[in-house]
Amino acid sequence: MSLLIVGSVALDTVEANKRKIKDALGGSAMYSSMSASYFADTAVVAVVGADFPYEYIRLLNRHKIDTSGLAVSSGKTFRWCGKYSCDLNQAKTINTQLNVFSDFTPVLSKEHKSSKYLFLANVDPDIQEKVLDSVKNPKFVALDTMNLWISKKIQKLKSVFKRIDLLLINEDEAKQLSKKNNIIQSAKKIMSMGPEILVIKRGEFGAMLFYKNNLFSIPSFPLEKVEDTTGAGDTFAGGFIGYLASCPKITFQELKKAMVYGSVMASFNVESFSLGKLSSLTLNDISKRFTAFKKITEF
Amino acid sequence: MSLLIVGSVALDTVEANKRKIKDALGGSAMYSSMSASYFADTAVVAVVGADFPYEYIRLLNRHKIDTSGLAVSSGKTFRWCGKYSCDLNQAKTINTQLNVFSDFTPVLSKEHKSSKYLFLANVDPDIQEKVLDSVKNPKFVALDTMNLWISKKIQKLKSVFKRIDLLLINEDEAKQLSKKNNIIQSAKKIMSMGPEILVIKRGEFGAMLFYKNNLFSIPSFPLEKVEDTTGAGDTFAGGFIGYLASCPKITFQELKKAMVYGSVMASFNVESFSLGKLSSLTLNDISKRFTAFKKITEF
Repeated sequence: MSLLIVGSVALDTVEANKRKIKDALGGSAMYSSMSASYFADTAVVAVVGADFPYEYIRLLNRHKIDTSGLAVSSGKTFRWCGKYSCDLNQAKTINTQLNVFSDFTPVLSKEHKSSKYLFLANVDPDIQEKVLDSVKNPKFVALDTMNLWISKKIQKLKSVFKRIDLLLINEDEAKQLSKKNNIIQSAKKIMSMGPEILVIKRGEFGAMLFYKNNLFSIPSFPLEKVEDTTGAGDTFAGGFIGYLASCPKITFQELKKAMVYGSVMASFNVESFSLGKLSSLTLNDISKRFTAFKKITEF
Repeated sequence: MSLLIVGSVALDTVEANKRKIKDALGGSAMYSSMSASYFADTAVVAVVGADFPYEYIRLLNRHKIDTSGLAVSSGKTFRWCGKYSCDLNQAKTINTQLNVFSDFTPVLSKEHKSSKYLFLANVDPDIQEKVLDSVKNPKFVALDTMNLWISKKIQKLKSVFKRIDLLLINEDEAKQLSKKNNIIQSAKKIMSMGPEILVIKRGEFGAMLFYKNNLFSIPSFPLEKVEDTTGAGDTFAGGFIGYLASCPKITFQELKKAMVYGSVMASFNVESFSLGKLSSLTLNDISKRFTAFKKITEF
């Protein structure tokens, strides 16, 4: 089964733990596709500038990520610059340069249009909708978004919500979207907007899954050293959806395992800056951490 | 096996969810003993004033809590007045009146001195130490504390830590005590101070257990309606230690179940003000929620 991901590609400048990296690979499409690539055939639809380092494309291709949908525009690649305080939970955005992203219109190839799994990673909901319109009869559509779009484009988001199966969102965004402080009340309100499956991401405190009347809750995988939390949510989403795309059937049991795989992938991701650790895993690393996750949560 | 708990008895005035209760039963000894009483024979050592409503003592006795160690001093009962913001995670203390607590010296009966399980609930570490000195050869000693004592009496606390088996502490206090931001690093540092077992309570985000080189992590039990979180940590501790006191042997497996029972009891407690719900449970309620907890965390 093939998974198509639309999202951002960024060159990130990040300061965390008194260290700084410059123009490193980032963006929602990059974290999520790299994470998904361990589970399913993955393709990306996104835009980069002429300054985008070719080594990053080679890195994606080494992971068998189909980059034929990666448009190279004249101009500069999208840039994000952020800094983390010592608790690493929340980045302060220093600046954002949209660059080639500001007038990106996704164009899908015939093959991409027939993707069975679609992940609309965090980008402008207008772009998410365009991609959704282009894909014929997808089996499963997931979407991630952020506070910015909830504030600025809520009507568009709500109309897209009616057409998706899964929404992934973090806890603060869920509260913002639902105007409810309680997480269960929040989840019910959001599910009434359309998605049958909802994942609320809670960062270092884990994640919750809502599916019909079922609920599943996990802590995060505990880590003694966290380097940089950038992209953790995207990585979670990629692992989650990548795993689902590898399942013959989507059941509550598989959704629960997808939660754990998402969490496992995110835990690797935060152990290094950029995609350093995420891009150098083996299936054995993932399987071992899945088992370890089971061990620390089972009673 | 009998469990002796020393801690505070308070008359609480609490504002939460736009409701307010006045002079309701509270204090670390009350929440923890009520919670423990569902699992083990429990006795309390504490002090109240002459104004303490007799109905509260009858309530404790109906739960077979031994109140022979509850000293009634002339003067007023300890009072705490707090207010919660809408997220219910953190109370703002409006005022604290120590009253009879200010010169409380615990005196233990012969029977209490031979208690096998001892819980030094959150009070002044000088009081905790006096009780610990009085109990002959306890099998298991647990302690809870708070930010105030970590700031004001750290040397006394550290000397008591060397004599306990289990420390229960919330996440902020763990960071304050260890001067570490990472929870795993924090746990290692705290365990090097003495306790072989450490529980870090994370409120609505669950709890973590550290035992030798083992780790266990749980989310909290999800609730659609939370009324008042006062005493949740004490209730957790009471359920945890009460369950342990009912086990023939303390193993990692039993400690994990104690975590879940602690969490289950705390989840009931926050569903009402004061000890309303906590004091009106059946063993069947507890057992059903334990099973529900397993269902929402198992994969």
